[in-house]
Amino acid sequence: MADDAYARQGFGQTLGLGRRPALLVVDFINGFADPAMFGGGNIRDAILATRPVLEACRRHRLPIAFTRIVYAEDGSDAGLWCQKAPRLRELTEAAPASHIVAELAPLPTERIVTKTQASAFFATDLAPWLVHQGVDTVVVTGCTTSGCVRATVVDAMSWNFRPIVLGDCVGDRAIGPHEANLFDMGQKYADLMLAADFLDALDRLPATAAAAR
Amino acid sequence: MADDAYARQGFGQTLGLGRRPALLVVDFINGFADPAMFGGGNIRDAILATRPVLEACRRHRLPIAFTRIVYAEDGSDAGLWCQKAPRLRELTEAAPASHIVAELAPLPTERIVTKTQASAFFATDLAPWLVHQGVDTVVVTGCTTSGCVRATVVDAMSWNFRPIVLGDCVGDRAIGPHEANLFDMGQKYADLMLAADFLDALDRLPATAAAAR
Amino acid sequence: MADDAYARQGFGQTLGLGRRPALLVVDFINGFADPAMFGGGNIRDAILATRPVLEACRRHRLPIAFTRIVYAEDGSDAGLWCQKAPRLRELTEAAPASHIVAELAPLPTERIVTKTQASAFFATDLAPWLVHQGVDTVVVTGCTTSGCVRATVVDAMSWNFRPIVLGDCVGDRAIGPHEANLFDMGQKYADLMLAADFLDALDRLPATAAAAR
Amino acid sequence: MADDAYARQGFGQTLGLGRRPALLVVDFINGFADPAMFGGGNIRDAILATRPVLEACRRHRLPIAFTRIVYAEDGSDAGLWCQKAPRLRELTEAAPASHIVAELAPLPTERIVTKTQASAFFATDLAPWLVHQGVDTVVVTGCTTSGCVRATVVDAMSWNFRPIVLGDCVGDRAIGPHEANLFDMGQKYADLMLAADFLDALDRLPATAAAAR
Repeated sequence: MADDAYARQGFGQTLGLGRRPALLVVDFINGFADPAMFGGGNIRDAILATRPVLEACRRHRLPIAFTRIVYAEDGSDAGLWCQKAPRLRELTEAAPASHIVAELAPLPTERIVTKTQASAFFATDLAPWLVHQGVDTVVVTGCTTSGCVRATVVDAMSWNFRPIVLGDCVGDRAIGPHEANLFDMGQKYADLMLAADFLDALDRLPATAAAAR
Repeated sequence: MADDAYARQGFGQTLGLGRRPALLVVDFINGFADPAMFGGGNIRDAILATRPVLEACRRHRLPIAFTRIVYAEDGSDAGLWCQKAPRLRELTEAAPASHIVAELAPLPTERIVTKTQASAFFATDLAPWLVHQGVDTVVVTGCTTSGCVRATVVDAMSWNFRPIVLGDCVGDRAIGPHEANLFDMGQKYADLMLAADFLDALDRLPATAAAAR
Repeated sequence: MADDAYARQGFGQTLGLGRRPALLVVDFINGFADPAMFGGGNIRDAILATRPVLEACRRHRLPIAFTRIVYAEDGSDAGLWCQKAPRLRELTEAAPASHIVAELAPLPTERIVTKTQASAFFATDLAPWLVHQGVDTVVVTGCTTSGCVRATVVDAMSWNFRPIVLGDCVGDRAIGPHEANLFDMGQKYADLMLAADFLDALDRLPATAAAAR
Repeated sequence: MADDAYARQGFGQTLGLGRRPALLVVDFINGFADPAMFGGGNIRDAILATRPVLEACRRHRLPIAFTRIVYAEDGSDAGLWCQKAPRLRELTEAAPASHIVAELAPLPTERIVTKTQASAFFATDLAPWLVHQGVDTVVVTGCTTSGCVRATVVDAMSWNFRPIVLGDCVGDRAIGPHEANLFDMGQKYADLMLAADFLDALDRLPATAAAAR
């Protein structure tokens, strides 16, 4: 029924993969992989599904960025969000919880963006870095679907970087919010693709997409 | 079940009303009140529930801002979002659909922020205007819950303005996304209140909250 | 002497024209062309020197944007800057002073960005619009050199859009600040070119620079 | 002569110290104190003049933030600015050049904002942090006057935080640009004060300015 309204009102059109995509891996850090901290649900599955995507993007020499949430040890940069969800403050540089999961360890020259808010674009240099890389599309994997992924995707759309969400490479601590946010993003803020379909599309990208700048 | 994980992980704490709130009325424009365009669901109810809130905020002389989506007649400022949801481009200055509903008509000196993206903070002067008003809390009404309200609330949190969402004063074209997004916001990005409770709290605010700057 | 320190410390390297430049015409509005309001100095000369540049960019089908300063008639969006320089508030939509000078009248589909602060990037959608246009270089003309041009150029650099300032197409109400700011920009934030040299370079740009997106 | 135009056009009005100032110490790092790297001119004098200001602000318990320029060791976050001034890339976390000078060493809980561009506001959480601190005024010391100080001050004005520049606590590698930028800021973007006058004003601030939040 809801879908009827969305279709009738023209939502859910396709953006398409642009000329030059970047891969963005959002907050796949130990603390979000651990059900005892911020994890649970299908996050582990999404981490595993991201591995071949990461490898393919490296092979195609696409720009790749990872995000982490990191707060100062002394809490001097903690704001209201840490009041709403106090355990966020445990994500300090010294805490293993703030580091990227071993399965997706960044290579030495890959970009790591640290952030203190949900969106990877907020108060970071992600947008100017994407400009510098000549990127027009942001392929998003990570967690949580209803949190940092959603916030990042909405901002990517506002910044006019085509957001592509790989539905099996994003995860959440609970399935209800995961699915509800995939629906919202697919209708309004992103194209939804499965990892396998993205890998196929990647092989058809012209060579100019590679990091030849 | 999902709620269990959220509670166990410490989400959903209370922010509280700050010292000086502003009222933000998001996109209650004709096009979103009209089921034949972008409306439907409980949007009409939310408009009606916002009327006493707007009147009370005026009585308490709080800063008040309204948002509208407005694109240039020639489409020169239309970006990817207008590709995902093409009817957005109909919201031009000349189109009645882009104007605020008669029930909530702004007074001559109230602030109207025009925007082209979901968040009222994106590429607008809303944040610096709130700084200029000395505001620490943003009370949000408007539509849609799963769209511009959600995007605005996430940004308000990131900007460290306490977001308070009046649950009966926000609406959406479909109830599923409305409820899913209220859940997300209540757990992670905002305090949820009912209009009646906010009106009570407003009467207990110290006089210093008024626009005496 | 000062120049010695700059050279020794490695400032003033060349950025070069990128693959796809846009032209940005900053605040060539009647109020800044009028010595009785905000004008004077070499602003008139800069307007005249911008004409052939604008025509050439149109011929090459480059993205073109103009900026204007515009405040609400009721002053509701006036902030601290209007306290520092109170006559800014006269630049309302209704005032001829806020409109672009006749010599450089925009064509119907050219982008006009309205702003309330010095930088054309601040609280506007200029950066996401440039992303949408696939631009990597911003060629800047306008006024004043020590005001909105300088602020815009510093932001363009931060956003990783190559700033090229056409030295004879920017002007200021007084020559001292004009020259001091050209020096700062040339050393730290932009390449300086003369209009004639830019026109030559434009003719050598590959056809892919044109607005073929 | 120039000054005549500025006065006639109404520039240079006074903003005044607000209710709650923060102190911002911009880029007083070893690399800018060292004439063999980015230093020289009157930067050393400005560092020494900042000491009593820093002590007084601590005594009054004002919010205090320091900025540093820091790039990743692998250069992955270096953009166009590092092309214009290549030695910037030497400012890595491991390099002593990127650390704050011993004379102004931050206390353990004072805020340190790292940045990669000229403005302390660009791609950092400085603005939301100031919001969180309830600040309405930013008192600026640091270097260089014509570089990061100027860029930060222009942004503070745009964000509606009253910028106060302490003229003897800001410095530059060359006196010409120092003086030219003090002129521009005083006319258009900030109040200029001497440290001694600010210290006097600080003693007259109401107790509510202290960090009692």
